[in-house]
Amino acid sequence: MNIILLHPDEVRSSSVILHDRRAEHIRKILGAKEGDRLRVGIIDGPMGSALVLGLSRHEVRLRVNCQDAPPVKIGTDLILALPRPIMLKRVLAQAAAMGVGRIMLINARRVEKSFFQASLLQPDRIQTALLQGLEQAMDTRLPVVSIHPRFRPFVEDQLPAIAVAYPLRLLGHPPAAAGSKLTSQAITGLHAPAHAHVTAKRQLLAVGPEGGWVDFEVERFRQQGFNLFSPGPRILRVDTAVAVLLALAEAGHHQGHQG
Amino acid sequence: MNIILLHPDEVRSSSVILHDRRAEHIRKILGAKEGDRLRVGIIDGPMGSALVLGLSRHEVRLRVNCQDAPPVKIGTDLILALPRPIMLKRVLAQAAAMGVGRIMLINARRVEKSFFQASLLQPDRIQTALLQGLEQAMDTRLPVVSIHPRFRPFVEDQLPAIAVAYPLRLLGHPPAAAGSKLTSQAITGLHAPAHAHVTAKRQLLAVGPEGGWVDFEVERFRQQGFNLFSPGPRILRVDTAVAVLLALAEAGHHQGHQG
Repeated sequence: MNIILLHPDEVRSSSVILHDRRAEHIRKILGAKEGDRLRVGIIDGPMGSALVLGLSRHEVRLRVNCQDAPPVKIGTDLILALPRPIMLKRVLAQAAAMGVGRIMLINARRVEKSFFQASLLQPDRIQTALLQGLEQAMDTRLPVVSIHPRFRPFVEDQLPAIAVAYPLRLLGHPPAAAGSKLTSQAITGLHAPAHAHVTAKRQLLAVGPEGGWVDFEVERFRQQGFNLFSPGPRILRVDTAVAVLLALAEAGHHQGHQG
Repeated sequence: MNIILLHPDEVRSSSVILHDRRAEHIRKILGAKEGDRLRVGIIDGPMGSALVLGLSRHEVRLRVNCQDAPPVKIGTDLILALPRPIMLKRVLAQAAAMGVGRIMLINARRVEKSFFQASLLQPDRIQTALLQGLEQAMDTRLPVVSIHPRFRPFVEDQLPAIAVAYPLRLLGHPPAAAGSKLTSQAITGLHAPAHAHVTAKRQLLAVGPEGGWVDFEVERFRQQGFNLFSPGPRILRVDTAVAVLLALAEAGHHQGHQG
């Protein structure tokens, strides 16, 4: 927790009293004393510092002064085939930490139907996962998360209107079908993104399920102007793939601005 | 598990009988039947396929044919300030999946001493974590892992001889001291790696502990030719930072070869 995040309605006349895990963090991990200053932020608002007015075993009282803008989000937003809950939790926190502003969780052939019934998809549980990432990365603004349980209505009806905001569209695609049972599918070895020197403001990156997108899905994304984008010949776990693809997309993006 | 990995001494006259989690994976996850072919590899040896000769509730019998070279390792090796065990397990698997060939686990001021007593540091536990990564990424070669419980002997006595093999040396360094208690340390915002257009064969990337390297440590690494390297202004968790920094280092590396 590199910043203490406060809900806007917790703060009254610049003061806040904490009782929960944040209070425990301030006392036990930070070992804060009266008069110390802590880094704090208002969720979806400004960030700044707080003066510790008092601590007890039951509560921590702070006076809050938040006037700084939170860090800018990165230029890449994320479409993610819904992963299993434990992986989703990790990817949400990680994407929030990396500065993704919008996350669309979608269905795909190789997504297990039960994943859409996961309790983690309740808004408060999603927010908890996102806050962990923001606390790590010192940001206040929650990514906007939407859930799309049907692939075709998303890709055919919603995506065209969404995609216009993103000049660059990247389809993360594993180099081979996953699973150690051999199939007839060729093992391809895609490398550096073809767009690396294109100037662009915003990018939309679609990351598939563990087994990859099926051909039908790849075709639909390609029709919407998505280009295949792979970090190399290795099949990575979804959380690793998201971190790697976001980093490479952002690096290409920055090169675009320089070139 | 995208490849079934076999220990060399399990295979006798091209045959192997499995009883453990690999047998369960073959039956339950892959749903394999007699006559199916599976992707297999010999640990630290070649990879290829195996014919399922027979399955029962207790065992899976395979005939193995491994003649293909495993994928090449990436050009970046890793020095890692020892993280907490649960994180170490994840980073070892992830680094193995990404193709890191050598991992040096070292001490640093902000590494908790107890981490060096973790049972995860036993060779068989480390190997188990690495194998998970190799099974994910379809590789057979275990990264070489070494443990260095004292910072100064490592950096002063061992590192000079190690570093000569790496023309590029990168010091992963978070942009600000972690922890929401404010310090006087300035929040810097380092960006793209300065070496992005240097041609080089091998890179050595040193990733610090959660709270970052202390000044003394940064100084010692700089004396050994390490340059500061950060993915941007956000403080990332160690597992995310390793994935992002490796991806960016490799991307710079590949640009070097192209340029």
